[in-house]
Amino acid sequence: MYENKDKKKKEGEHLTSLSELGEFGLIDRLTQNLPVYNYGTLKGVGDDAAVIDLKDKLLLLSTDLLIEGIHFDLTYTPLKHLGYKSVIVNLSDIAAMNGVPKQITVSLGISSRFSVEALDEFYAGIRLACEKYKIDLVGGDTSSSVTGLLISVTVVGEGVREEIVYRNGAHSGDLICVTGDLGGSYAGLLVLKREKEVFKANPDMQPELSGNEYILGRQLKPEARTDMLALFRGVGAFPTSMIDISDGLASETLHLCKQSGTGCRLYEEKIPIHPDTVKQAREFGIVPTVCALSGGEDYELLFTIRQEDYDKFKDIAGISIIGHMTSPDDGEMLITTDGKTMELTAQGWDAMRKR
Amino acid sequence: MYENKDKKKKEGEHLTSLSELGEFGLIDRLTQNLPVYNYGTLKGVGDDAAVIDLKDKLLLLSTDLLIEGIHFDLTYTPLKHLGYKSVIVNLSDIAAMNGVPKQITVSLGISSRFSVEALDEFYAGIRLACEKYKIDLVGGDTSSSVTGLLISVTVVGEGVREEIVYRNGAHSGDLICVTGDLGGSYAGLLVLKREKEVFKANPDMQPELSGNEYILGRQLKPEARTDMLALFRGVGAFPTSMIDISDGLASETLHLCKQSGTGCRLYEEKIPIHPDTVKQAREFGIVPTVCALSGGEDYELLFTIRQEDYDKFKDIAGISIIGHMTSPDDGEMLITTDGKTMELTAQGWDAMRKR
Repeated sequence: MYENKDKKKKEGEHLTSLSELGEFGLIDRLTQNLPVYNYGTLKGVGDDAAVIDLKDKLLLLSTDLLIEGIHFDLTYTPLKHLGYKSVIVNLSDIAAMNGVPKQITVSLGISSRFSVEALDEFYAGIRLACEKYKIDLVGGDTSSSVTGLLISVTVVGEGVREEIVYRNGAHSGDLICVTGDLGGSYAGLLVLKREKEVFKANPDMQPELSGNEYILGRQLKPEARTDMLALFRGVGAFPTSMIDISDGLASETLHLCKQSGTGCRLYEEKIPIHPDTVKQAREFGIVPTVCALSGGEDYELLFTIRQEDYDKFKDIAGISIIGHMTSPDDGEMLITTDGKTMELTAQGWDAMRKR
Repeated sequence: MYENKDKKKKEGEHLTSLSELGEFGLIDRLTQNLPVYNYGTLKGVGDDAAVIDLKDKLLLLSTDLLIEGIHFDLTYTPLKHLGYKSVIVNLSDIAAMNGVPKQITVSLGISSRFSVEALDEFYAGIRLACEKYKIDLVGGDTSSSVTGLLISVTVVGEGVREEIVYRNGAHSGDLICVTGDLGGSYAGLLVLKREKEVFKANPDMQPELSGNEYILGRQLKPEARTDMLALFRGVGAFPTSMIDISDGLASETLHLCKQSGTGCRLYEEKIPIHPDTVKQAREFGIVPTVCALSGGEDYELLFTIRQEDYDKFKDIAGISIIGHMTSPDDGEMLITTDGKTMELTAQGWDAMRKR
């Protein structure tokens, strides 16, 4: 009835499809000029987590929605792993603020094809992540869904005012660093998708997953880099800006540049990629760097540091320096291994494939 | 692949369907024996909101998942109203703890049939609720969905230790009170569903909604009783237990009884029902009390007070005393207007219809 009225009212008007704006454009549009009513609200939309001032400490709040068929495929994702990963992706947002995750809520929409035992498996994964990261599951909401499984996790964390790192604190000249290695999760996803196709063609075929344990682990059971805060404290220096790598190195680097008002130069040869990722990417005919730039779901931390802090950070194991921030006039650039300078784009995939 | 393995492993085993357990049974099972790792976690699963100790005050956290086709029907729910209500149902959870809601996050899963303009409407409702209740929208997550609209809202609130009211604090002899009137939201829903059927049969027919403004407002644009905290402070007394009425008076009363370890006696004649609700329920051939007991979505507060506090609470306008708590041995009872004593059940519908 109402939909009908709306349609009549808008006859002849151009309605904008969601794809015209894209996810980030849509969020910008929907959340522009949001007023702030409460003194404690320090940071709203636009970082890995919201920041709420509690005077003696800061409260961090982040939420992620995971939808079957969009964010995960249960044909190759065990429910226990899915439960674990649902927690991890949220903890990673708190790690990206340099805070400590403390509590989560988990809401589920469940279609009737799931048994109670299947949900037990899912919750076993949730509990495992909570145990490992010392997180309390404090609430949630459970309802039926029309189709598939919907998961909404919210995490609450704590931070110390002087330690919290936002996306917008980088300056020209700052070094760009990344933890761990990148692209493995995407390479693992490619293997799982290939085996799904094989399985569809011949259900009796055993999946060929051996030898790919590392990249499959990166995809199915990622970890959150909540360990970094203690390491930063240990060397007595903190990043100037930080973000976690959920959408791929290119997209995250552009977020830091946009919010900090800088340009950047990333060096392809410096991007850390695990040998198993390199091997598997090549088998699929993909430049390994593409997995790192556009694959996503690595849940490593991308951050910037002052040049004068270099001596402090260089002693932290497992950090790679992959470039530096520049003046915004210099643009966001990737220097390829063969010395070419190309523009860094969130859709780095196509550009890189043409090489 | 994994699903297949799971199925093989479990061949012959009995898998439990979700309907065998029901929502509350499922939550109990999934969240039993949850460990607590953090000192600050005071109250986990099992109340309207989780409670986290921040020393000088308490943090309240609650979340609700709303799924198209389960929780709302867009054929008769304007998107602006839906946005508004999505916020209200969460604020109501904080009101039910006697706290003050402060911030929300809103996550959306959106299918491609929604235009950007439709989401603008939805967010206009979100913003209106935020403005009215002085709430900051601080974050969220937006993604595509396979089908329909999914809404996940999380609210953060604050409370004062001495003022927070849990579900488990009632004692035998406490008076049972309710704010406002009940059953209106469900009566409004019945009207909307009837008009949807009329519309399906004849799309040119104008919906017959006039005269039903009150109950339609109760369904489409409910309010959260965040005003009660100041009233309680004003009389200098607080409830011993409290819950908000989202599932119907019967279900909520049973929650208070179960968690407080009491029985209860509710008096049908004392249950506040608006004349428009009575009129419309009768038109549908439904006993009006059924709308109050089992309709839900009224978002009024159900609470208990000490008998000795009666003189304080009686001066608050718009509160009805509808019964009292008893020893658990006396069961959960409803005394009907014609003097019969019947057991109060969350499935009060069928029992009442047979009268």
